[in-house]
Amino acid sequence: MFKVHKTDGRARLGQMTLAHGVVNTPIFMPVGTVGSVKSLVPEDLKTLGAEIILGNTYHLYLRPGLDVIRHFNGLHKFIQWDKPILTDSGGFQIFSLGQLRKITEEGCVFQSHIDGKKINLTPELAVEIQETIGADIHMVLDECTPYPATPEEAKHSMERSLRWAKRCREVKSRDELWQFGIVQGGMYHDLRKQSLEGLGELGFEGFSIGGLSVGEPKPAMRETTDFCCEHLPEDKPRYLMGVGTPLDIIESVNYGVDMFDCVMPTRNGRNGTLFTSLGKVNIKNQKHQFDESPLDPECSCYTCQNFSRSYLRHLFIAKEITALRLLTLHNLTYYLHLIHDIRDAIREDRFQDLLKHHQQLWDK
Amino acid sequence: MFKVHKTDGRARLGQMTLAHGVVNTPIFMPVGTVGSVKSLVPEDLKTLGAEIILGNTYHLYLRPGLDVIRHFNGLHKFIQWDKPILTDSGGFQIFSLGQLRKITEEGCVFQSHIDGKKINLTPELAVEIQETIGADIHMVLDECTPYPATPEEAKHSMERSLRWAKRCREVKSRDELWQFGIVQGGMYHDLRKQSLEGLGELGFEGFSIGGLSVGEPKPAMRETTDFCCEHLPEDKPRYLMGVGTPLDIIESVNYGVDMFDCVMPTRNGRNGTLFTSLGKVNIKNQKHQFDESPLDPECSCYTCQNFSRSYLRHLFIAKEITALRLLTLHNLTYYLHLIHDIRDAIREDRFQDLLKHHQQLWDK
Repeated sequence: MFKVHKTDGRARLGQMTLAHGVVNTPIFMPVGTVGSVKSLVPEDLKTLGAEIILGNTYHLYLRPGLDVIRHFNGLHKFIQWDKPILTDSGGFQIFSLGQLRKITEEGCVFQSHIDGKKINLTPELAVEIQETIGADIHMVLDECTPYPATPEEAKHSMERSLRWAKRCREVKSRDELWQFGIVQGGMYHDLRKQSLEGLGELGFEGFSIGGLSVGEPKPAMRETTDFCCEHLPEDKPRYLMGVGTPLDIIESVNYGVDMFDCVMPTRNGRNGTLFTSLGKVNIKNQKHQFDESPLDPECSCYTCQNFSRSYLRHLFIAKEITALRLLTLHNLTYYLHLIHDIRDAIREDRFQDLLKHHQQLWDK
Repeated sequence: MFKVHKTDGRARLGQMTLAHGVVNTPIFMPVGTVGSVKSLVPEDLKTLGAEIILGNTYHLYLRPGLDVIRHFNGLHKFIQWDKPILTDSGGFQIFSLGQLRKITEEGCVFQSHIDGKKINLTPELAVEIQETIGADIHMVLDECTPYPATPEEAKHSMERSLRWAKRCREVKSRDELWQFGIVQGGMYHDLRKQSLEGLGELGFEGFSIGGLSVGEPKPAMRETTDFCCEHLPEDKPRYLMGVGTPLDIIESVNYGVDMFDCVMPTRNGRNGTLFTSLGKVNIKNQKHQFDESPLDPECSCYTCQNFSRSYLRHLFIAKEITALRLLTLHNLTYYLHLIHDIRDAIREDRFQDLLKHHQQLWDK
């Protein structure tokens, strides 16, 4: 069940009741690619207040593999995470393989990056894998339209995704698990409209906006998000896949997006780039060498409550594993606090003020 | 102040009262080379029950450097660890540099492995660095005698270490911080005896047994430890540097050693080798692929209380950082539990039974 409790402009405050619990929206989902959010353990995620995490079907199918996941009756027990999980379909990862994959009407044939084995990922198999994983929300297999794409290419790709979406819906077998359709159509409004109308007839529990954050300029991304949200049904959750920066997130909430995932907080953390209430911080910078102050004076995370920039810089430069953990903890805290700030602002009808604050902070 | 409260045979139960708190002995000190115990944070160490950790002077001097440590009034505040710290003198690391260092009567000249800068580590500088670090216990600079060494080489080296020990004692300036002499002399009893008698006149707060675990056969290590303990004063703590396996530790307690440090639990953890109540476990092994049981059914650590061997194997093979943390947590828990078991056994006059149990377990 999905319910929108409150709106402020087009920004929505809602709640999804899933097989493993309730998730408030807007939501940011930390990415746990292969069965762990890199450098963290489930206890950390609960401390951070994560309500749902994302797993990658492509990675999990290759390793540990379906036989292991089936042995544990699904991913939840295997990784010891009892809250909701969302999985992508694997399509995006395969799309990123370039030369190593071949896409036909039947599905995607690709070579495992681990043992070179040939795998034929059909829409039917994508659903079977995700239902075996036991993801509270899973995605249909889609073909991610590259950027740039001609109208013909985008149309061909969108139509195939639509046919695949139908095949996915037909084999869905577990009622308690949600399935999302994925809107494609590149940067073309008419194609996006055909896509979401086609998907709308298939009874999905929610909709993803796909094919964005793949190299297009920010204005194109924003405009496409805006257009899709305008035409998606009000009573279903909307998930903008793989997005994005803190500003991307709040700008997209402004169009009515409910759900986000991105490797940015975790990956950037491991690369020494931190998001703070003062803007971006590069912890490698020499100027932090003697700095006794925390990364972010407004942050309540373990890292900011205990350690100086000087120490974090030292650990990072010395390539200590502990640095990766401390910086990941901070960045995820920043993202999850941002989501809470967004929810509070919608609740109190001051979302536009928060949006303006972030536009000024990040456009610096 | 050091007090031996109870003995069982030659095994001793004691207590050191240091600048940053009380440390019970026998003790195992996790190694925090560059200012963090790799993959862990201070909160973890407190959960594990670590009473004192080790820092490496060589590494800390090169990075973050004395200016940063001085800016924070010592290592404790910099790394946010408020319990005792012990530092080595840097001698052993420099000894390990091989061609990159030159040792004269003045001290060790070596090249930084970071920026190639030439550094002249004298006994006086070694003390200055360690007092700036603010280590509760620091070591004199010594020359680690290699194995094998002729009687002449071992004698020459031991005598130089003795002269350096005297120079270190002369420049010690902070009364509240302890300084340990280091017994050298290779595998030769007469040289070891000369070394410990010479050191005995200098008023050290405790003694380290150096030059072991450098390639000699186990019986030679045991015999030299036995000999040194027999001749060291009863009223001072005895520290066997860089040792060792769980069996090495309990065998050495049997001779009267009080203190241990070793990278083995942390490094082996990161390499997938675990110490358990059932013996050694190689987590990479295929046989764990579907294994739902914990690493160690008798262990109370976060890893064993929450995760299966199957999941740990998966994370390790997928090279997830989370695996390093979970396996490090387990191995350190094993070592610290071993130390607690040893203390309980001494307290209850059943140390020999515990020793026999471990001899059987690890000789398998």
